[in-house]
Amino acid sequence: MKISVFIATSLDGYIAKLDGSIDWLMDKRYELEGEGFGYQELYDACDLLVMGRNSFEKVAGFDEWPYPGKRVIVLSRTFKALPKNIDNVELFSGSIIELIEMLTMQNSKHIYIDGGQVIQAFLEEGVVTDMTITTIPILLGEGIKLFGALSKEKHIKLLSAKGYDNGFVQSKYEVFN
Amino acid sequence: MKISVFIATSLDGYIAKLDGSIDWLMDKRYELEGEGFGYQELYDACDLLVMGRNSFEKVAGFDEWPYPGKRVIVLSRTFKALPKNIDNVELFSGSIIELIEMLTMQNSKHIYIDGGQVIQAFLEEGVVTDMTITTIPILLGEGIKLFGALSKEKHIKLLSAKGYDNGFVQSKYEVFN
Repeated sequence: MKISVFIATSLDGYIAKLDGSIDWLMDKRYELEGEGFGYQELYDACDLLVMGRNSFEKVAGFDEWPYPGKRVIVLSRTFKALPKNIDNVELFSGSIIELIEMLTMQNSKHIYIDGGQVIQAFLEEGVVTDMTITTIPILLGEGIKLFGALSKEKHIKLLSAKGYDNGFVQSKYEVFN
Repeated sequence: MKISVFIATSLDGYIAKLDGSIDWLMDKRYELEGEGFGYQELYDACDLLVMGRNSFEKVAGFDEWPYPGKRVIVLSRTFKALPKNIDNVELFSGSIIELIEMLTMQNSKHIYIDGGQVIQAFLEEGVVTDMTITTIPILLGEGIKLFGALSKEKHIKLLSAKGYDNGFVQSKYEVFN
């Protein structure tokens, strides 16, 4: 089973400001006509999305649900039920290993995981298979970190690196577990 | 006056382990025959190096002084004198602005600054002109951070990005001040 990270980060390693906002990322200065940076291809290739409570609350607050029709699993031990009923969104309160066992039983082939805490937990658990990191040309100074503590250092393998005219640098890595 | 950063960082943003060690960076797996990643060109182009106390103590402990003949300024307010007398190395205990005033008077054209705290302080002061960041394909989990807090976010301009066969990704940025 492939477990993929596809995320944007400031050069200093933040995926959002401390209040969770990503307005700095949505800046018009970064728009490149006809360029989606590979997001849609990954999204389409994945059976489902896994995200944490914070990411869910963030996207559930958008005017439009960004993942119509896509299966989404929200990892949370604090939610008793999802605060907002959205088609195809389910709550999971077990461990990562239990989640992967369930998804393996269900014959899932490719999972897209999102959000700093989820990514950090999956990396620590040693189950991420690949990461596409898009580095935005900005220093935020503070925010919600992409990476966190690990019980041991982890070598990763660069698959490709590409700079874009809008200043993004996208690096793809294979993760050894 | 150009003030350049040229530094390697783990993908999770650390320039050294917590004890200051960079053994993970010196790993033989990263050796690429005949490839210096542009370090020598920058080093040769610079009139002088500026580093902090930690970086100085680190390199002063090497078997061989790595900057023979190069002017080096060590920024420190705690040192009364340099603990080790090395030719062409001087102590400066003033502010960054005072340092730049002095170097401007001395007609310095290009400064290479090194070390996390020095880089962070120069960025916060708004005097860095360009950064070459080489991202090493490893997650350390903890360590000495390349970037730190800033009083306001800072847009930077990507000049080039390149992936290497050893997994390094080198990105060059112009910094607006």
